[in-house]
Amino acid sequence: MAYYVGIDLGGTNIKAGIVTDEGVMLNKDSIKTEADTRSNEEIIHEMGKLALKVIEDANLKISDIEAIGIGSPGTPDNVAGMLVYSNNLHFEMTPMRKLIRDIVDLPVFIDNDANCAAMAEAVAGAAKGTKDSVTITLGTGVGAGVIIGGRIYSGFNQAGSEFGHHVIVSGGVQCSCGRKGCFEAYGSASALVRITKEVAEKNPSSRLAAIIEEDGKVNGKTAFKAMREGDAAGAEVVTIYTDYLADGLANAINTFMPEVVVVGGGVCNEGDPLLIPLREKTMSKPYFGPGVKKTRIELAQMGNDAGIIGAAMMGKSCVDDKLDGINSAS
Amino acid sequence: MAYYVGIDLGGTNIKAGIVTDEGVMLNKDSIKTEADTRSNEEIIHEMGKLALKVIEDANLKISDIEAIGIGSPGTPDNVAGMLVYSNNLHFEMTPMRKLIRDIVDLPVFIDNDANCAAMAEAVAGAAKGTKDSVTITLGTGVGAGVIIGGRIYSGFNQAGSEFGHHVIVSGGVQCSCGRKGCFEAYGSASALVRITKEVAEKNPSSRLAAIIEEDGKVNGKTAFKAMREGDAAGAEVVTIYTDYLADGLANAINTFMPEVVVVGGGVCNEGDPLLIPLREKTMSKPYFGPGVKKTRIELAQMGNDAGIIGAAMMGKSCVDDKLDGINSAS
Repeated sequence: MAYYVGIDLGGTNIKAGIVTDEGVMLNKDSIKTEADTRSNEEIIHEMGKLALKVIEDANLKISDIEAIGIGSPGTPDNVAGMLVYSNNLHFEMTPMRKLIRDIVDLPVFIDNDANCAAMAEAVAGAAKGTKDSVTITLGTGVGAGVIIGGRIYSGFNQAGSEFGHHVIVSGGVQCSCGRKGCFEAYGSASALVRITKEVAEKNPSSRLAAIIEEDGKVNGKTAFKAMREGDAAGAEVVTIYTDYLADGLANAINTFMPEVVVVGGGVCNEGDPLLIPLREKTMSKPYFGPGVKKTRIELAQMGNDAGIIGAAMMGKSCVDDKLDGINSAS
Repeated sequence: MAYYVGIDLGGTNIKAGIVTDEGVMLNKDSIKTEADTRSNEEIIHEMGKLALKVIEDANLKISDIEAIGIGSPGTPDNVAGMLVYSNNLHFEMTPMRKLIRDIVDLPVFIDNDANCAAMAEAVAGAAKGTKDSVTITLGTGVGAGVIIGGRIYSGFNQAGSEFGHHVIVSGGVQCSCGRKGCFEAYGSASALVRITKEVAEKNPSSRLAAIIEEDGKVNGKTAFKAMREGDAAGAEVVTIYTDYLADGLANAINTFMPEVVVVGGGVCNEGDPLLIPLREKTMSKPYFGPGVKKTRIELAQMGNDAGIIGAAMMGKSCVDDKLDGINSAS
């Protein structure tokens, strides 16, 4: 059995765990990121110490571990071992590999967190057994990870895939990326909240509006709750939102023709009331000729551990490809 | 020196040529497809005979040739050696490899024609020297070919990439594929003609409207001609069209993060009046963080021989990957 350390670096928490070569997590631990008070160097040294701790907690030695895989927000350079840029954590050309290796003498590989989540689904989750898959996470934004031939595909500059930032409504709603009308601006949980507010305002006597009044807030669940109570305005929100989601998912299918599109994020907890219309709407759209195999749409299965497991399995894929996880550009 | 036969199967003509392993075409020939009078079997046997002719014309023997690569409309199955489906040529589960090999005893590989055009640009054209590129052809439709790691990427079902059929205007203009608002419906030469007509109708006293009256027709050149003569309506058409094109190209960049996006097709003959605003509009949109390498946008270079050269180089990539070009599923 070969073992890998997966580290999931987030704005709030740093999580790490030991993962087998089949994508099974043996143990995990986490600490606060504390990006406001810690320097970049301190954050990364803490990541290294957390790696040492989970190795020890699993009763393993450093020599039992093949590599450390790190999933980070932003754009990595896995050749140089750098984090080129991360808006969330204010990293810029940060020598992450070198700083981890100050603490732990193991090969270190770095990729984007959304890409690592896609890797987790491909190795052990909803896309297990497939070579080509796309994982789309509907959260505050729309994250996307693309797996091609069992490997993360992130483009020549490792900055992809930013599939959440492809325009589906030319000239539409302003997106955080600067463009107008991105998939993220119509398919994210934040977009669902915006659509819910808009429809409630137009239908002030609806149950939807009453629920918002009662709860004193709007979130991704509000419209589904109203719909379950038989409210037409709630159902209208779900129709509008799933229409946009279906546009984005069908775009992913026509663009990548993956065996599976995996959909994750908090919105997916709604289950069938979301998934059934979404599948139906999406699958009528792609460009499949007669006899051509069709993509499947599945819900994400890896949950909160996707980041750790995916980072570890990204590390494994780099070891398998005999990439250098030792040398650093700086 | 290794030699390959490339065959470009089109609705009107079948073209074939001998291509070196560096993508240089030595000679070529063509015949009419005559799909209305020939059976599928006859068409493919004619392709085989044309392959024999170009081998002979180059003073080569069959044993000098490594493989035959075929670029065809539709969806291939390069493992089974079949053309699964082609709308244009009414092929369905056609055993193309077997039928070619009735005539010529060589390994035969099959891929989609737009994918082969992208391969030609990647080996010998505008994307030469890069591993990851996307070639987009603006014609009657919008064709797309994706090269990843120096290989055609066409998805798990070989039906991709149908990037021309990703929606950029949700609920927009009807597309031939059945969806509404596809990139093809806004970025193709046909779309340019539609936009030209719309703007001319709204501006009946414009030079644009006068040119249409004089010429008795509208084509992809009409608006550019009016613009060159100082007409505001002509300039408006070019603005609208390049805005949509920039949406699609920026979507390709964010989605694939390729080193180069190659743009081809008749519309590109307009040169700088198209390319300069298109580059400027497109490059302001993608999601590049500080320090992240940027995609280039280049005009296609391979012209009419792209189909032959790309098919041959696709065949070469299959030989290099040690794929089986001999056995057929049926």
